[in-house]
Amino acid sequence: MAKDIETTAEQGGGEFSAKDYHDPPPAPLIDFDELTKWSFYRACIAEFIATLLFLYVTVLTVIGHKVQTDPAKNTVDPDCGSVGILGIAWAFGGMIFILVYCTAGISGGHINPAVTLGLFLGRKVSLIRAIMYMVAQCLGAICGCGLVKAFQKTYYNSYGGGANELQPGFNKGTGLGAEIIGTFVLVYTVFSATDPKRSARDSHVPVLAPLPIGFAVFMVHLATIPITGTGINPARSFGAAVIYNKEKAWDDQWMFWVGPFIGAAIAAFYHQFILRAAAIKALGSFRSNA
Amino acid sequence: MAKDIETTAEQGGGEFSAKDYHDPPPAPLIDFDELTKWSFYRACIAEFIATLLFLYVTVLTVIGHKVQTDPAKNTVDPDCGSVGILGIAWAFGGMIFILVYCTAGISGGHINPAVTLGLFLGRKVSLIRAIMYMVAQCLGAICGCGLVKAFQKTYYNSYGGGANELQPGFNKGTGLGAEIIGTFVLVYTVFSATDPKRSARDSHVPVLAPLPIGFAVFMVHLATIPITGTGINPARSFGAAVIYNKEKAWDDQWMFWVGPFIGAAIAAFYHQFILRAAAIKALGSFRSNA
Amino acid sequence: MAKDIETTAEQGGGEFSAKDYHDPPPAPLIDFDELTKWSFYRACIAEFIATLLFLYVTVLTVIGHKVQTDPAKNTVDPDCGSVGILGIAWAFGGMIFILVYCTAGISGGHINPAVTLGLFLGRKVSLIRAIMYMVAQCLGAICGCGLVKAFQKTYYNSYGGGANELQPGFNKGTGLGAEIIGTFVLVYTVFSATDPKRSARDSHVPVLAPLPIGFAVFMVHLATIPITGTGINPARSFGAAVIYNKEKAWDDQWMFWVGPFIGAAIAAFYHQFILRAAAIKALGSFRSNA
Amino acid sequence: MAKDIETTAEQGGGEFSAKDYHDPPPAPLIDFDELTKWSFYRACIAEFIATLLFLYVTVLTVIGHKVQTDPAKNTVDPDCGSVGILGIAWAFGGMIFILVYCTAGISGGHINPAVTLGLFLGRKVSLIRAIMYMVAQCLGAICGCGLVKAFQKTYYNSYGGGANELQPGFNKGTGLGAEIIGTFVLVYTVFSATDPKRSARDSHVPVLAPLPIGFAVFMVHLATIPITGTGINPARSFGAAVIYNKEKAWDDQWMFWVGPFIGAAIAAFYHQFILRAAAIKALGSFRSNA
Repeated sequence: MAKDIETTAEQGGGEFSAKDYHDPPPAPLIDFDELTKWSFYRACIAEFIATLLFLYVTVLTVIGHKVQTDPAKNTVDPDCGSVGILGIAWAFGGMIFILVYCTAGISGGHINPAVTLGLFLGRKVSLIRAIMYMVAQCLGAICGCGLVKAFQKTYYNSYGGGANELQPGFNKGTGLGAEIIGTFVLVYTVFSATDPKRSARDSHVPVLAPLPIGFAVFMVHLATIPITGTGINPARSFGAAVIYNKEKAWDDQWMFWVGPFIGAAIAAFYHQFILRAAAIKALGSFRSNA
Repeated sequence: MAKDIETTAEQGGGEFSAKDYHDPPPAPLIDFDELTKWSFYRACIAEFIATLLFLYVTVLTVIGHKVQTDPAKNTVDPDCGSVGILGIAWAFGGMIFILVYCTAGISGGHINPAVTLGLFLGRKVSLIRAIMYMVAQCLGAICGCGLVKAFQKTYYNSYGGGANELQPGFNKGTGLGAEIIGTFVLVYTVFSATDPKRSARDSHVPVLAPLPIGFAVFMVHLATIPITGTGINPARSFGAAVIYNKEKAWDDQWMFWVGPFIGAAIAAFYHQFILRAAAIKALGSFRSNA
Repeated sequence: MAKDIETTAEQGGGEFSAKDYHDPPPAPLIDFDELTKWSFYRACIAEFIATLLFLYVTVLTVIGHKVQTDPAKNTVDPDCGSVGILGIAWAFGGMIFILVYCTAGISGGHINPAVTLGLFLGRKVSLIRAIMYMVAQCLGAICGCGLVKAFQKTYYNSYGGGANELQPGFNKGTGLGAEIIGTFVLVYTVFSATDPKRSARDSHVPVLAPLPIGFAVFMVHLATIPITGTGINPARSFGAAVIYNKEKAWDDQWMFWVGPFIGAAIAAFYHQFILRAAAIKALGSFRSNA
Repeated sequence: MAKDIETTAEQGGGEFSAKDYHDPPPAPLIDFDELTKWSFYRACIAEFIATLLFLYVTVLTVIGHKVQTDPAKNTVDPDCGSVGILGIAWAFGGMIFILVYCTAGISGGHINPAVTLGLFLGRKVSLIRAIMYMVAQCLGAICGCGLVKAFQKTYYNSYGGGANELQPGFNKGTGLGAEIIGTFVLVYTVFSATDPKRSARDSHVPVLAPLPIGFAVFMVHLATIPITGTGINPARSFGAAVIYNKEKAWDDQWMFWVGPFIGAAIAAFYHQFILRAAAIKALGSFRSNA
């Protein structure tokens, strides 16, 4: 019965006449109990390793692309020797796909302080957890970039170190706007993919959560690599800036924190207050079951 | 038991000997009740935001590609600095994948007036809803293109504004035909993906609806970017024309409404009368269960 | 309980200690009953339309690529104006993905006489159905190529018409071998994806049948476009040859029928006699349940 | 009930308050019983065929790319005539996707001695099975490369034979490190995808095992093709070295065994002792149910 109602509701986007799901209660702001559990520290380790691998693979791809397309180095075959900008966009999106897939069951698979902030504002994680995740992500990003630099120091320094910088020809407002909307696309997808309402509709729009999240990252890179190199992940921008450590990367750094955090906050607001409004109202009466 | 019957039926495409699904009743033409529900307005907002994001990301990708491959601007490395036509096709297809995924549970995930028309003709949505969706989609498309122009006005105007135009060397009949068949591919996939018959066969051909829908858009772009730039979405063509506002874009505009609407109508006809014929006949006797 | 046994069996590839699936009985060689059912004719129509769309989109992509990369036509920006060979490979693989997805529930989603032959040899479809499908597929392929020619006759004729031909520098044995192994990869994937044993293991290796089938086509195109242009689908090669109608395309035509048919036969043999050996032996005793 | 607990646990990464899955018992080190079962030999055949097809398609793609981009051979259109490095990365990743999909139910779908070693260290397969798989994989790889050489001997020898070699400009430590981390990414994904804990969380993060595993291979190739050509699969490197048989390929061969084996061992350790620590401790009390 519930299935049929769902099917109708989805095709027309109609009202749910029976509520066959319920939201988990909001995460407490501060939960000292978490700190006594191994699963909490394990989650932080998983975020650290995932962000490390993310930066290692993507920055290596960026540097490899730049080496191969440098006309001063490769006189023969300058074009097809590299994966291209499209390959770089795939590297970022594809890594997020597999890392979210691998860590979703351990830490929730954030790998991005902006995602953590969005889920914190949506009351999915506690404040303590959010802060610890962000620290783990930033440390992981630094180590990932450090590995790339350790492997190929000369190339790393001469080809930009994978750092995010505002490209010439764009003003700061454009760069900030690109980061805000790009992060909105990502965090909006994350909220849609982890919405408990989805589980109830499983049979019709199955939850492939990590794949659309990875694709969201891929898409935003296609669009904004020419503008900012695409941050939408403060840990990624911070890690590259720490290891590359040139003035321009630090000058623009604020943009890659403020932009993603604003975008994530808007996405959290949009999902919780616009899309889930009815659900939130009804939450009180259902909470006793949760 | 039902599973085994299904398996046989699918491999040979045979008749279903037992009907283990039933169609929802057709949506009413006019349903004033909808207008009293928050879920209706929420769905319109979701269509607006999704079309806005769709145009923003895709047109930004198109402009970025054209800037990077302009031989007058980039004397060094003209080829690998852009995502290429393949990247543009991915941007359109990939965005539809994630946006259908995100909005399917809210509005049905149309993001395209041609899809809305097809589903209206298939009696999946009411007339009022169809019209409101189309208005929301067109407004979203205008805002999405407007954002791109606001971010980079000079580039936007000098590199074609992402507007659909018939390319030189093709006549109007070819352009119209390309739009008709392209939209047929898309709307045929949408109907196949949302067919209630599918839910009954879940275990064998699972419903990954948003992924094949996104791929359909990707495929059509690979084929028809050289002909019309690929519309298959009147809101996308209209939004770009409004913001770009050059004569050529308006002269060809009819093609990007007539073509997709004809294609969507043929797909709705093909699915409902050819592929689902038996189901429709049997509908009367089953409707009481629905 | 069954689930746990499955999990163990899969990780180690061990023996199934309890049989929790059963094969459907083999399709009859000749089944006149089918001819009296609308679902049979509907399946043939679906195969016709699917093959038409397959050839239309893929050949349009091929011709578009060749026009855009012709150095005589495009002096400016000769490289990035096309989707590239990678885009062509995606067009073939991606179309098979969406068309198998759309037609799997109607006709089984063959869209390829070699697949039909393989499934006939595996006793999944009757002889009558197999022949009718192949006729529908060849007619669909002719119409699809015809549409492309109607849209752009000059380009179609001057850029090879999307016909399969053995490329210079390779001998006939290599071309035939490439077609055999390429079709083996495809039909082996089809058999694996539609294996009833899979349904029993659903929870661990879920059935995404159309996606790996589409990827198999994509992969084979990456490898053998430089050798034969990649057939692995006699209807595709035949349709293009009929519409293009140049001597070379007809001279090599045999290769694109003999190769795929041999490859499909080997795949059917490999799956039925090597991989499913135990299942076949046990079939007799279980058939009464089917 | 269990579902709700899971949902909460995943979003915050919290502790599981009830254990609704259990691990299969570790595989015995030596299990002579296996040797009496057809399924064991069938699994070895499946690994042999899968590795053969893997090497055949990927090495053919590599050689085809190099032929098409050789400026001495193709004066016209040197860039768009090939699938590019991005196409090569897709060939490796995509083949792993479809082959894991096809063989997962027969042999577990290893197709890589490093994966076999990782699963052996995780006690998922017995020692005898691990050794037999590795032998089958190496023989398959040799045959796959042999087929490519048989098809196009001149091209095969002049364009590097698809062999893994440390590229100029990188030292041995970098090459070894790249292989270790690359294999870690792959085997970590394999462990995450086949974790029995996942089955319990199915409704929220569904198991698409073969897709992320294929993507992991794709990602690592994007990053490390410029460094070592990307091994992360000793059978792949060994097969190409045997058939190509040039000094450089043999000189670097150790790197493509030591690196992947170390990476796989670290991944097995990370998954079993860090991520699954709690589960392992609890295993004893649950084993009686298995």
